[in-house]
Amino acid sequence: MEVLKVSAQSNPKSVAGALAAVLRERGTAEVQAVGAGAVNQAIKAIAISRGFVAPNGIDLICIPAFAEITIDGEERTAIRFIVEPR
Amino acid sequence: MEVLKVSAQSNPKSVAGALAAVLRERGTAEVQAVGAGAVNQAIKAIAISRGFVAPNGIDLICIPAFAEITIDGEERTAIRFIVEPR
Repeated sequence: MEVLKVSAQSNPKSVAGALAAVLRERGTAEVQAVGAGAVNQAIKAIAISRGFVAPNGIDLICIPAFAEITIDGEERTAIRFIVEPR
Repeated sequence: MEVLKVSAQSNPKSVAGALAAVLRERGTAEVQAVGAGAVNQAIKAIAISRGFVAPNGIDLICIPAFAEITIDGEERTAIRFIVEPR
């Protein structure tokens, strides 16, 4: 599955647009964020994308989960959001 | 509905315990967070509480939404998470 990586500098509306596109095409998406700023932008993007896909009859929900990832050889804990229709 | 208010200083595991208790009692809960640090702790709490209620056969999902709230006379944008079984 394609994973949308969100940073603290990501624009929530842009991420929301990308997310809506993936959802319409594949029915489900994954969003990954590392750090509080990134998690905050990811959540805003998911809230905004609810509005983008609602007219398509999609009631979007998200499932947050921890994920261990490696960045530059260092172990970090990311938050992964599984985003899909209810 | 009872709203669990989460701050950047909240302990995610403690919030997760409170969340699981509300969910078992009422079936649904709301979590409110203002600011990136608080949103991050709220999401960690929701991820942890999934593990707390999974043995009860509950597949927990969350729906993020924006909420305008007033803190000390100032308008702030909070993130509200509706947390409920799928």
